[in-house]
Order: sequence, then structure tokens, then C-alpha cells
Amino acid sequence: MIDLFRAAQQASRALAAVPAATTDALLRDLADALIAHTDFLISANAQDLARMPAADPRHDRLRLTPARLASMADDLRAVAALPSPLGAKLSEKTLPNGLLLSKVRVPLGVVGIIYEARPNVTIDSLALCLKTGNACLLKGGSDAAASNAALIEVAGPVLLRHGLPLAAATLLPPERAATEALLRAVGLVDVVIPRGSQGLINYVRENARVPVIETGAGVVHTYFDETGHLAQGAAIIANAKTRRVSVCNSLDCLLINESRLADLPALVAPLAAAQVQLFADAPALAALAGAYPPELLAPATDEHFGTEFLDYKLAIKTVTDLDAALDHIARYGSRHSEAIISENQAHIDTFLQSVDAAAVYANASTAFTDGGQFGLGAEIGISTQKLHARGPMGLEELTSYKWLVRGNGQVRGG
Amino acid sequence: MIDLFRAAQQASRALAAVPAATTDALLRDLADALIAHTDFLISANAQDLARMPAADPRHDRLRLTPARLASMADDLRAVAALPSPLGAKLSEKTLPNGLLLSKVRVPLGVVGIIYEARPNVTIDSLALCLKTGNACLLKGGSDAAASNAALIEVAGPVLLRHGLPLAAATLLPPERAATEALLRAVGLVDVVIPRGSQGLINYVRENARVPVIETGAGVVHTYFDETGHLAQGAAIIANAKTRRVSVCNSLDCLLINESRLADLPALVAPLAAAQVQLFADAPALAALAGAYPPELLAPATDEHFGTEFLDYKLAIKTVTDLDAALDHIARYGSRHSEAIISENQAHIDTFLQSVDAAAVYANASTAFTDGGQFGLGAEIGISTQKLHARGPMGLEELTSYKWLVRGNGQVRGG
Repeated sequence: MIDLFRAAQQASRALAAVPAATTDALLRDLADALIAHTDFLISANAQDLARMPAADPRHDRLRLTPARLASMADDLRAVAALPSPLGAKLSEKTLPNGLLLSKVRVPLGVVGIIYEARPNVTIDSLALCLKTGNACLLKGGSDAAASNAALIEVAGPVLLRHGLPLAAATLLPPERAATEALLRAVGLVDVVIPRGSQGLINYVRENARVPVIETGAGVVHTYFDETGHLAQGAAIIANAKTRRVSVCNSLDCLLINESRLADLPALVAPLAAAQVQLFADAPALAALAGAYPPELLAPATDEHFGTEFLDYKLAIKTVTDLDAALDHIARYGSRHSEAIISENQAHIDTFLQSVDAAAVYANASTAFTDGGQFGLGAEIGISTQKLHARGPMGLEELTSYKWLVRGNGQVRGG
Repeated sequence: MIDLFRAAQQASRALAAVPAATTDALLRDLADALIAHTDFLISANAQDLARMPAADPRHDRLRLTPARLASMADDLRAVAALPSPLGAKLSEKTLPNGLLLSKVRVPLGVVGIIYEARPNVTIDSLALCLKTGNACLLKGGSDAAASNAALIEVAGPVLLRHGLPLAAATLLPPERAATEALLRAVGLVDVVIPRGSQGLINYVRENARVPVIETGAGVVHTYFDETGHLAQGAAIIANAKTRRVSVCNSLDCLLINESRLADLPALVAPLAAAQVQLFADAPALAALAGAYPPELLAPATDEHFGTEFLDYKLAIKTVTDLDAALDHIARYGSRHSEAIISENQAHIDTFLQSVDAAAVYANASTAFTDGGQFGLGAEIGISTQKLHARGPMGLEELTSYKWLVRGNGQVRGG
């Protein structure tokens, strides 16, 4: 395994010098190659699908179709069309002693991506890493082993045709031993990004000796303030909860100011149509009794707060004021996306200032926390940590920098 | 222990809202307090010194004197005088749907610092963390326990006087159990920065479950190219090696182009006066025979390459060309500081582009890799990783950012 990592590091040295135009041409060619090899890819994918019970909820994510391959090809072309972040001069100055000091953007080096049964992540990660001059070590789930191998088989000749080494994008064996080795490859791997379930992220955190960017888990709140606009609030809450329940920016807990309990039935009315199950604390439960389908209404217990549901479920908590809402979010939030619905500018300002999260919203749906929506062009994940990258991670977040110092004989005194 | 961490997290919420002027006044008051309590601090320090054998090389670092306290006070005033990095708008745009999206600089939150027997690091870390709105958890070495406790005792009333909670700067117990708990405080600690020996850094990497910024170790090379300027080269090499041998930017290995072996005696001549011991490969040894004090000259063995000496010792390796120098650095360097001495602009450009290190130099001494020299104003360490911060870490490197999204009812389609 260590030989694969060394080869990736060697490849990363070559990649750092590849012109952006070459990488972009490669990505466009790879898009064409995916389309040209549709039958081959779908037949490899069929082997994976055959091994997974059709009732498995991951079955749909695992499936490749001609339309999905076309969409992956479109994504490749979109990444190719983005400006390269590399080489940008982040700062430059001449020191009093004449040294010219420049801070320039460079690749991270070798990026490891650990993901589950989603073959599209193979191509997506490869594209974002190559675009940013990084070699990638791809550790896909064993459920998608045949699909991933086929995708990399298609990518190989495209890399070689553009003068890149195969080690620029390496698919690791599907066994867990590969994950363990990757997480301990100190000095060979510059960062590992896990993309997937909380279980995967916890495993990575527990075992990594190399730097990690944690992604994903979002326990998301929206606070409806004393002065919240009812119609806007109802639309925002419905959108944040039901647009896509399986994504990390979806709403998990509504905090309602106690002075607005009378408006709670109208505020959550659109959720009934989507069969959203509510777990309400006592005051909210009383306010909703008779006004929400009883089979979808239950008392909240402790475990409903701080839970990422990823489902048609929503916790509701009554709070006395803004401070209580802030305390609840500080205690139960996962620092992902948090929102306030209010017409009180001072409250909005306090909320935006005080809440410690990657994205803090006033009067908008948390569904916007997404690299594409934020204008990053592409996204490799949503960081829930504060180091290096926070929130949606695009191309710049896959880079580092170095200091270049040009002199003519300067030495340091003292 | 977990209660201390929770209190720090609570304090970090308060700190994020403290005006910069308050923090700056606090730091100036703390400077005065250190001077006012000189006798108390020196007598606490005497207890620590009494427990450490005078022959211990750490004895000098542990010692506080009136002059050193005055210098610590000066450093505090200098940090107070720096502009605050907080609140800066890193980007702002209005999306087509009317959402106003701002990316603003915020504190990291809770920063853990693990260090050894240097009491000045206690005040230094406290100052840089408070200046950047971070609560700090300070884990000093047990050798400095009394000194650190006294320093924090002096700081406490100053914090309170300016309305900050004591938990804004917490000294952890000197036992190793505190380090272990700190490294595993997932969800409570945003980053841990180890400041000290390679052994400490390895221990932190092995045990941390929270994000870490690795600092310190520098295996530093300087390559003397075919066209290198002899007088400049001799001065640069002497400065990089002997200015301060105990710091991470000091030179460990001279790479010499084989075409310049005849100049090697003149190139290293200034090192003899400083009693620098040379470990030279066969061609370099032959070139130096009779031209360098024999008692300071020995053949290089494998272990001399890739070693951070932190001593009056230097490895010398002969290389056939620039590529061989680049390969040697890629294999043995620690990505800290690397230099070329050359009059060939193409070679300089290749070197600056190819070498993967925090600071890459042309015709200057690596002794400049330092936050003060790079104009960062202050420095909490030199990162040797590529994530978040690379090279000297100043105030901005102790911050994160968040996205603020201001709307008027926007929901996401599709």
C-alpha cells in the first residue's frame, strides 16, 4: 500500500507543474470517454447492483444510468471551465532588506478521499483534485468496487494521453485495510477528506494520524422570533425541511418564541402535506393539538434535540427569548447551518454575530448551504470544522500556499 | 477536566463579542501587571528552577529574570498594537435571488496549546489567543508548573477587570492526563497546537482526535548551484547554520553541485570558526581534506541526511545537477525552509516552483523563516503542514471564517 502512496506523492510533484490548459483538456476528454464507454460502465455497475439487495436504501445511489453518466460528464466539463486557483499571488511585498516575499497558492499535494457506495464521487473527486494540481487516493466503498474500477479504467488512458502519470489518480483496494493505511500515511498524505455517514467520519477521526477535514453532519436549527414574518417563515421552514431530507443542510429543529405559539399551526401547516412527523415540547404540543394530523404529532424527548434526522422528522422547542434560542443552538447545533426568522434588525444582528456555524442565515432557507449556491463552482464537501475550510469547499479549499523569498545575498542579523 | 473545556467553550462565545479596544487595553494592563509582580513571579520561578538540575539544557529556557519579564511585557504591548484580524469581510456578493452573502473572519473558538518548560509561552499564547478572540487551554510542562501558575494568577484579575471570564485563559493541570483529555475533547476544542520537540509533536499526532496544527521540525537544505556566487553563498550558509543552531529554520544539509567542489573549502570556511562539525559524502570529503580542521570533518552516513541537528553540525551531499538536488530535498526535507544559491534565473525559477516547502528561498538565508521577519507581527509557531496555515503563523492563522446569509424570504427551488 505504501508504494501506492509514494507513487501518488511522486505524481503530485509532476502535477504541480502541469499547465491548467492541459488539465482542462483532460477533464473534457474524460467527459467524452465516460459517454463513449457507457455500456462498459453500466455493465460493471450491474455487477455491483447484483450484490446489493434491491431493498437497500443505498441501491439508488449506487446505480449508474446513461443519464447519470451524462450528468457526470457535464460536471466534468463544468469543472474544466472554472478558472484555476493555482499560482495566484495572495500577497507580495519587498522587505526593508530588499527581500522580495511572495505568498502563492499551490496544491495541497496528495489528497485522500474516503467515501461510500456512490461511484459518481470517484469521478467528482478525481476532477476536483486534478483541477487543483493534487494527486488523489480514492478509497470507495466495497459495494461499488466494480463500478469504481471501471471508471478508473476509463480514466487511465485519458490521463496518459495528456502526459499525466496513472498515479495522479489511484483507486485503492476496497478493503478496510486500505483505509487504515491511508489514515496513517504520515508524511505521504497531506489531507484526508471523508465523504459519507457520521459513522465513517467518526471512524476516520478515531484512526487518522494525517490531517483530516471533517465534513457532513448537520444538526440544523431555525429560530422563529417574536417578530417573525409568518408567511415567509412557513415557506422557509417547509423548504428547509422537505426540499431534500437526506442532505446535511436540511432542518432538524424549529425553535419558536413562546409569544408566537398561537401561530405555530400556520407555521408548520405545509409540513403536514409532506407527512413530516413532529416531535414537540409541551407548550408546542399543546399549541398544535387538533391543528396538525395527530398521527404525525408526538411529544419531544431529550434524544430528539441534537439529532440529525435525514428524514421527514422535525423537533420543535419553545424558547422564551433570543438568548434561550442562542443557548439551545450552542448546545445542540453541529456548527453547520443555523437560521433566524425575524423582522427585528437588532435580533438579526445579534444572531448573525453570535451563532458559531459555517453558515448563519437571516430570513432564508438553510437549503442554500451548498458550494454551487455559494458560487464556488464545484464542491467536494461541506466542512464542519473551523480549520482550513468552513462550510462548502470548492477549488480554493483544495489548495495551500507557500512563501517564495527572492534575495541577493541577504543574511539575518542578531 | 471536561468541565474546564466546557467553561472555555462558554467563554469563547463571550470572547467573540469583545471589542478589540477592550482586548488591547487588557493586554497593556497585563504587561504592567507582569512588571508590577516581578518579585512574585521570579520567586515562583525559583521553585521550578530548584527542581531542575542546573546542568539540564532546559534550565536556561525555564528561567525568568526581570529583563525577560520586561521583554514579555514588551511583546504584550506589541501584540496590543497590532490591528485586530476579526470581523474583516473576506468577500461579499449579492446572489441573483437577492441573498446577500458575506464571508467574515471569526475566531477559531477554543485553542489548546501544549508546550514544554518555557513559561514565556504561557503569556505569549494567552496574548495571541485573546487578541484573536479565542479562549485558550494552556498545557505547560510540569517543570514550569509553579511559574505558569503564578503567571496565570497575575493574569486573572486583569481579565476580570476588563470584563472577561477567567475561563478565557485556563491553565490545565501539569499532568499528562490533561494532555490526553485535551487531545480527545471532540466538539469542545477547535484546534490544538503543540509547541516543542519532535517527541511532543509525535505524541500529539498519535493521540489527537481534535484538529491539530503541527509545528516545528525543520530539516533544512541549501543547494549551491553551478553558478552560485561564492562570497554570497559562504555568508548565507554560515548565517543559516550558525546564527542560532537551536531553531527550526537552521541549516542541516548543504547540497553542492559537483562542478563547484573546488570551491567547497572556501564555501564552508566560515563554519570552522564556529566549530561546526561537517559530515561530508565521499566527493565532498575529498574536496575538504586538508582544507577544514580534521577534527571537525567526518564521512557522512545515511543517518546524517534527513536529520534536524539543532546543533553545530552540517551534512554535505554532492549532487550532479539541479534535478538531483530537487530529488534529495523531496526525499529528505521536512517541507519547512529550503534554499538555492544560483545566478541562473531558470534554475532559480525551477527551484522556487518545484520545491514543496513552507518557505522556498533564492540567494538568501533560511534564517528569515519567522513570523516577525515575514511581517506577521507576532508568531505562535511555524506550521509544517499544508492545511489551514503554512510556515509562520500569526494572528490571521488563529482565525476561521463564517458565511452570513441575509435574505427576505428566499427558499431554494429544485
